[in-house]
Amino acid sequence: MQPAVVNFKERVMKSFQKQTACASIGLKLSNVEAGEALFTLPFNSNFTQQHGFMHAGIITTALDTACGYAAFSLMPEDAAVLSIEFKTNLLRPAIGERFLILGKVIKPGRNINFCEATATAIDAHGAETKVATMSASIMAVYDRAISD
Amino acid sequence: MQPAVVNFKERVMKSFQKQTACASIGLKLSNVEAGEALFTLPFNSNFTQQHGFMHAGIITTALDTACGYAAFSLMPEDAAVLSIEFKTNLLRPAIGERFLILGKVIKPGRNINFCEATATAIDAHGAETKVATMSASIMAVYDRAISD
Amino acid sequence: MQPAVVNFKERVMKSFQKQTACASIGLKLSNVEAGEALFTLPFNSNFTQQHGFMHAGIITTALDTACGYAAFSLMPEDAAVLSIEFKTNLLRPAIGERFLILGKVIKPGRNINFCEATATAIDAHGAETKVATMSASIMAVYDRAISD
Amino acid sequence: MQPAVVNFKERVMKSFQKQTACASIGLKLSNVEAGEALFTLPFNSNFTQQHGFMHAGIITTALDTACGYAAFSLMPEDAAVLSIEFKTNLLRPAIGERFLILGKVIKPGRNINFCEATATAIDAHGAETKVATMSASIMAVYDRAISD
Repeated sequence: MQPAVVNFKERVMKSFQKQTACASIGLKLSNVEAGEALFTLPFNSNFTQQHGFMHAGIITTALDTACGYAAFSLMPEDAAVLSIEFKTNLLRPAIGERFLILGKVIKPGRNINFCEATATAIDAHGAETKVATMSASIMAVYDRAISD
Repeated sequence: MQPAVVNFKERVMKSFQKQTACASIGLKLSNVEAGEALFTLPFNSNFTQQHGFMHAGIITTALDTACGYAAFSLMPEDAAVLSIEFKTNLLRPAIGERFLILGKVIKPGRNINFCEATATAIDAHGAETKVATMSASIMAVYDRAISD
Repeated sequence: MQPAVVNFKERVMKSFQKQTACASIGLKLSNVEAGEALFTLPFNSNFTQQHGFMHAGIITTALDTACGYAAFSLMPEDAAVLSIEFKTNLLRPAIGERFLILGKVIKPGRNINFCEATATAIDAHGAETKVATMSASIMAVYDRAISD
Repeated sequence: MQPAVVNFKERVMKSFQKQTACASIGLKLSNVEAGEALFTLPFNSNFTQQHGFMHAGIITTALDTACGYAAFSLMPEDAAVLSIEFKTNLLRPAIGERFLILGKVIKPGRNINFCEATATAIDAHGAETKVATMSASIMAVYDRAISD
């Protein structure tokens, strides 16, 4: 792993607070380390699909955010973070009281960070079940407009 | 293409109305044909990421829904629809007044439907820009609990 | 995990021997356990890309095979195995004396098996470097023509 | 689309000739235009899987090559081309006399090119069947060691 930037926790928190999507779905930042970010997503009946499970796209919103900040924690201060692509695998229906969302960088790079994330459901008794995984390519963007 | 079920439009509409996630993000069903589903997603400042673009996970929520209903329109009445996996490619930042979300079945099957979807941003002048694509595997589930 | 079929090792070996592609690229079956399959791929200058690395598609051939047999080891005797889709992430150039290819089922199912695989390069000094990962959806096909 | 480099056909051909993997599987370059590359892959019984279809990894080798050269055709002369990741969707068994492999850039960029490719089987009567699709992220690498 490349050395983490000194103030990466503050930078992650500051950026995360600008994400209205994450606030709207109830996603909370639990912890961030160099190359790793942990979030908690409570079950929310406003964001379900037709069978009453959390919508795969909402779980993906949390997984993508976890991958993005895992990568961002390793980036220099002049870098912005951008998802290039991600794949979500829907192992089981997203049912539970809440979900732990853990993102990790598996291969950092100056431009491309390969990341993985998991969504683990926690039921009323504390039992854990992995419900989804993601693999993502997260880019560091330097010295140019983010929309280029 | 396999022959579409007679009442597929009603079935898609009825199922879509149960998706609280879609209502919460403002996704509207515009049209459904056999093997194809079109939705509209207005830009919504409550669902952005840190740069003010629509969050990739929210765009994914719309794309996954479009793939799911494109596939569901071809399924027999006793089938439930379930996403196995999807990949989202984030071509450009999701900026615009609204987004057209078009899902299509590219290869139907009794069990697995291969689908593709695109998200096209429409700006204030009506100009269209493709911002994201998805490829998804959507499963028909028969004769058993959906959570199996 | 579902209980493994009694004779899964023999079935995997017998099926693997029919794969001319695997023989042609030099892929060797090293071990198979219930839900897991390990292969070795020697570096082969007949299967490189333009910079002299092993071609990503050849590494993918090995990764897909590892996912397929990890899943096949858990399937009943009347099932055939078929890859629905896979994603390969190319972490680093595929250079080395040989590559260890490990496939695992991360979520088995009667129809769909979610699998992951890694390709780890071994250099002349025995040092290991992960060069690629795969996530794959592998299907069990029953009671019908494989080409359906 | 960005303007194509003047001598892109020569550069693609020269690079393609260095790919021993492509020669070994019998892949032929049929045509290259700016942002698009077409290849032909004859059916080859030395590269099949256990049911006698062309192995998904060999089809992927062709698809990845098509995406790579579609992207490379748009890159400046000082750029090297590298696949970051790709996803292959296996619509149908890869049976046929030969396969047309068409790669296209759907969104070019200075660093990342989003590409799509299709594999179409041609049978003895000339009938065409789409058997696989790919979506890939292809990177242009400048001014540094390719293995960085």
